[in-house]
Amino acid sequence: MKKLVIGIDIGGTNTEFGIFDKAGKCYAKNKINTAEYATFDIFFNKLKSEIQIIARSLAFDNKIAGIGIGAPNGNYYKGTIEFATNLRWQGVINVTKKFESEFNVPAVLSNDANAAAYGEMLYGGARNMKNFIVITLGTGLGSGIVVDGRLMFGHDGFAGELGHTIVDLNGRKCGCGRNGCLETYVSATGIKKTAIEFLEKSKTTSILSNIKNISAKDIDYAAKKGDDLAMRVFEYTGKILGIKLSDIVAITSPEAIFLYGGLSNAGQLIFKPVKYWMEHYLLNIFKNKVNILPSQINDSNAAILGAAALIWDKIDKS
Amino acid sequence: MKKLVIGIDIGGTNTEFGIFDKAGKCYAKNKINTAEYATFDIFFNKLKSEIQIIARSLAFDNKIAGIGIGAPNGNYYKGTIEFATNLRWQGVINVTKKFESEFNVPAVLSNDANAAAYGEMLYGGARNMKNFIVITLGTGLGSGIVVDGRLMFGHDGFAGELGHTIVDLNGRKCGCGRNGCLETYVSATGIKKTAIEFLEKSKTTSILSNIKNISAKDIDYAAKKGDDLAMRVFEYTGKILGIKLSDIVAITSPEAIFLYGGLSNAGQLIFKPVKYWMEHYLLNIFKNKVNILPSQINDSNAAILGAAALIWDKIDKS
Repeated sequence: MKKLVIGIDIGGTNTEFGIFDKAGKCYAKNKINTAEYATFDIFFNKLKSEIQIIARSLAFDNKIAGIGIGAPNGNYYKGTIEFATNLRWQGVINVTKKFESEFNVPAVLSNDANAAAYGEMLYGGARNMKNFIVITLGTGLGSGIVVDGRLMFGHDGFAGELGHTIVDLNGRKCGCGRNGCLETYVSATGIKKTAIEFLEKSKTTSILSNIKNISAKDIDYAAKKGDDLAMRVFEYTGKILGIKLSDIVAITSPEAIFLYGGLSNAGQLIFKPVKYWMEHYLLNIFKNKVNILPSQINDSNAAILGAAALIWDKIDKS
Repeated sequence: MKKLVIGIDIGGTNTEFGIFDKAGKCYAKNKINTAEYATFDIFFNKLKSEIQIIARSLAFDNKIAGIGIGAPNGNYYKGTIEFATNLRWQGVINVTKKFESEFNVPAVLSNDANAAAYGEMLYGGARNMKNFIVITLGTGLGSGIVVDGRLMFGHDGFAGELGHTIVDLNGRKCGCGRNGCLETYVSATGIKKTAIEFLEKSKTTSILSNIKNISAKDIDYAAKKGDDLAMRVFEYTGKILGIKLSDIVAITSPEAIFLYGGLSNAGQLIFKPVKYWMEHYLLNIFKNKVNILPSQINDSNAAILGAAALIWDKIDKS
């Protein structure tokens, strides 16, 4: 009998799910549209039937041993999604309880950045590391912090909210209601705002000047074409992240920091200023010790593979 | 046979040492002047003979099972003191190796803030806590961060350098060579600088106006007498720490933050603004969850008791 697990990544738009073995091999996968379902229960019923469909393709001697779920505002201790602003289902939702009672296997839930960190540790560039950080750069900025081989959840399960550390008390308005959070500068949303601000102040033309609704990809494209304004936008964004990372290193002393998804795909445009400014502001004892690396599981299965990794940790301990 | 341990706190001025049982009871203690000894070896020989003297008073059925040492820039993994600016002995010193070979028992070394955190966990207000932070307010600002019941040392043993997170990139010059570190504002040294700055700008008189070489204690005294300038100095200092703690909570999600030593003795003068401004800038999901507490082992043995606590953890695991 071979043990397999289900990895589920619940996102604001889509929910992806797949079946994996311990080595990270994907046996089957699919996705459904999250936003279509008005309540969690209706969503769950659809998801369950779709999972049952892909599970039919498995060999008879395979057994599903558990379910790992990554979701925004996922609380590891309580197994709940709590007040997730980019999901339609409001309040506190008992997610793992539902999965465990309907599938009769253990389930575990955490936020997508923690799932990414577990994925990096089991299958990616952190396989031999015990202290590292994964920063997910998407619409917002998330982080999973691994301390001595274990994910840091903190007292109430919400540790690692790096995106909501403050860059400027009087800075940009954040979705959390405060001002100047890191993710208002360093994220797809943040870099767009920076580009628009730079364009408004700029006296020279830019490839971006004539684009309506500029996207992070447009800025990436323009910068790679040598557009001065777009390159300055990346420099500015990387500098803000780099300075913040010098603080994070002083607190957690990681071996490496992985940048994952979205903006990290811009390569040296973002890595170069992040590295430069982090080193520049780093306390002496940490200088030239901390690697800034691209995630090594940056493929199309990364999110569900990370979610699957979450449950292997629980299965291995039981 | 009763197991006892030696706790040693190496400070820039004095080195204190004592013998403790697991319950934290002190059997004997003494101190020597650290700064008198030009090399670590001469210091060690004196310390060893003094420890042997106090150990003679112990009952025959007692056994020294280990030695815990707190020291500035103490590296837990390597057992070394590295480039400690407020000790006369420069470079990298192999401390635990020396103690282990000369005393024939296990020894462990960490910085004084980590020792304080272990002390708080074993004997103080954190006895039932798994995620908390101890901030030591002395000449500088140190911190020990406990994650899931274990001290966070990070990749190279230097995690928890909260005193060197940056408040203002263009701020006060710090001993570390950079500008605007937290400890240049929040420490005995920092609050003195603030008082002097405030006095220079002030048009009204203050109790502090006529004091040469103002100390943190003078500011405390003046504030408790209702001196407006001194109270504003505490408010300013507490606000800076409170804002920084809102970031630290978002990263580590502790149950409580303990303030230990020095400035923390000012009581509500410092606790009130720290609490107020931390809550004010805290991300919603953390509001009204994190206690700011005075250390519960704030007596004259606190530092050596914390150092002793470090080695119990190692003895218990072996």
